[in-house]
Amino acid sequence: MKFIIQRDHLVQSVQDVMKAVAPRTTIPILTGIKITASDEGVTLTGSDSDITIESFIPKEEDGDEIVEIKEYGSIVLQAKFFSDIVKKLPLDVVEIEVTNHFLTIIRSGHSEFSLNGLDAEEYPRLPHIEGSHVFRIATDLLKTIIRQTVFAVSTSETRPILTGVNLKVENNELICIATDSHRLALRKSSIETEDDTIYNVVIPGKSLNELSKILDDSNDPVEIVITENQVLFKAKHLLFFSRLLEGNYPETARLIPTESKTDITVMTKSFLQAIDRASLLGREGKNNVVKLSANGNNLIEISSNTPEIGKVIEEVQAQSIIGEELKISFSAKYMLDALKVIEGSEITVSFTGAMRPFVIRPLHDDSILQLILPVRTY
Amino acid sequence: MKFIIQRDHLVQSVQDVMKAVAPRTTIPILTGIKITASDEGVTLTGSDSDITIESFIPKEEDGDEIVEIKEYGSIVLQAKFFSDIVKKLPLDVVEIEVTNHFLTIIRSGHSEFSLNGLDAEEYPRLPHIEGSHVFRIATDLLKTIIRQTVFAVSTSETRPILTGVNLKVENNELICIATDSHRLALRKSSIETEDDTIYNVVIPGKSLNELSKILDDSNDPVEIVITENQVLFKAKHLLFFSRLLEGNYPETARLIPTESKTDITVMTKSFLQAIDRASLLGREGKNNVVKLSANGNNLIEISSNTPEIGKVIEEVQAQSIIGEELKISFSAKYMLDALKVIEGSEITVSFTGAMRPFVIRPLHDDSILQLILPVRTY
Repeated sequence: MKFIIQRDHLVQSVQDVMKAVAPRTTIPILTGIKITASDEGVTLTGSDSDITIESFIPKEEDGDEIVEIKEYGSIVLQAKFFSDIVKKLPLDVVEIEVTNHFLTIIRSGHSEFSLNGLDAEEYPRLPHIEGSHVFRIATDLLKTIIRQTVFAVSTSETRPILTGVNLKVENNELICIATDSHRLALRKSSIETEDDTIYNVVIPGKSLNELSKILDDSNDPVEIVITENQVLFKAKHLLFFSRLLEGNYPETARLIPTESKTDITVMTKSFLQAIDRASLLGREGKNNVVKLSANGNNLIEISSNTPEIGKVIEEVQAQSIIGEELKISFSAKYMLDALKVIEGSEITVSFTGAMRPFVIRPLHDDSILQLILPVRTY
Repeated sequence: MKFIIQRDHLVQSVQDVMKAVAPRTTIPILTGIKITASDEGVTLTGSDSDITIESFIPKEEDGDEIVEIKEYGSIVLQAKFFSDIVKKLPLDVVEIEVTNHFLTIIRSGHSEFSLNGLDAEEYPRLPHIEGSHVFRIATDLLKTIIRQTVFAVSTSETRPILTGVNLKVENNELICIATDSHRLALRKSSIETEDDTIYNVVIPGKSLNELSKILDDSNDPVEIVITENQVLFKAKHLLFFSRLLEGNYPETARLIPTESKTDITVMTKSFLQAIDRASLLGREGKNNVVKLSANGNNLIEISSNTPEIGKVIEEVQAQSIIGEELKISFSAKYMLDALKVIEGSEITVSFTGAMRPFVIRPLHDDSILQLILPVRTY
């Protein structure tokens, strides 16, 4: 294998596939990046066996030559060293050549590295995915959906299925749900599908976080292909594979209250800042519980009391408070998480009593819903 | 105590004195910030007993009212909570009032905090420093001197005196020296002194790092007052006290070679980048050793070899190589540390053989000198 490549393209691709490389792994070859030079260009692959990322650098783009292939072939190089090296090479152009015994020479200007490579034949094969059933979604919308749901997945392995996001496709609608059994995030959006296949799968939250990092903010479509145990996201010059979680995701629809006893409409930002301040006096590492009370005068009071430190009282003017008087306690962290991902300057919080889950929605927008279980203190 | 204060001035002062507050300490009251309201304004104090920082907020500045004092007095508030609160308060103006039993009310807009304070009488007194002998140095120069020396202090407590920077004043010259016995940094500068007092003290490296963080980048003078066991830096509205290290600093002058056998002059940046790349293949957490060889053709070769990973060879064109041929090994980290703080596009490295310390100086500038002990490998 031998090729000459524009360094900035190589650096970007290495950074992308590095997102899948785990520094420690039981399969030593997965600490490496696989590099393949073919007739079309150079392909880099990184994997931790749960996630696999493949980045392709074409020989030419917009008429500019990016890679000059001298000899086809492939090699696996230690990811950490290879990525440090390409970032710091002195010139804009890099030559990479595999000599005998997988020894790989990386040259740029008066800098020459010789790295001990590994046999690319030993590198695990990519999951084989038949791209028959495909649906498409704009890149920036996909990133928004991930951001609005993935924070709510469980971090505990007690119920592994809850560490993933439940993705459902039916009737040209995509529904993503995440819950850790204390709160739930739900986001709907309409998508283009090629047929009326129904999907109901669970994608690990970690995979979606990594995917979100390497996608750009364009509205170019991402193609999504789902098989029995894998999902593939296809963007321009990028393939992102993730395994799916096994098992049935709990039915969450019945958790969401369909009626309410108290509805508070309030400016998102002032509500969020008041909750943030009210949570300041808690002890480190605890989910700080705050109390909310709403009565006449459209005034919301948010308070917390930590006897050894002090107490705080915040008043927020609501746009409207409709229904019964209310006193309720909840985790400030869960509320802040939910408020941060809601787009929209005004929200409605719908309560069905102090012991029942409550729902946060942006005003006049049914595509996103955040649900939080209260804490029993009153 | 009761006063109304502009929030941004309070936030800045709290941030400054926080630099001295240790989150954990054997003296519980030192986890707090002392706040004193007097006729002139508000004074904040933070301390970990090694370092004490006092920040003063005057009642007025440039004709603007910053503080309105309603009632004199003082209180100690938990630093972490107080600093989080003032940062997040909703309005530009804050009212702070101590009621009975040290309970302190912090009000801003519709936000009200009640914090349990501590008796300010229990807070340790500031070191008493007679300001008779004073010298002055521009703030930005003082920060440069700290940056160019403090990185070379020892991080090991085996010889505690080496964890400090040796500061000497004599004949209107300030000399700062730091060494961890493997490398040494020396910086001279001329200063204004009011008399011909001679100083020779050792200031903890940690103190100088914290001082550097709170000084601005102006060329306003900082006054330095040195007593038997304390040093005081006085900037505008800011007092910074540090204890001195006890004991005699080793005599370092004789370590610095006065002659040389090989002198290499090279562009700082290309030399630094080549060393940086040559150090990439070392294992994590090790001081990577690189080899330098210089012979004819004004060409420097820098190389390193880690058999299980690979090797690297870098060639750097020198401006000149004068004297004997040379092969020497040294810590890439020490060399990079030294090169990063040297101002000047060209440096001269003066060697006296492969086993002797060598010296790095900017071309045509005797105010700074970096010395490194080689590693025995050839």
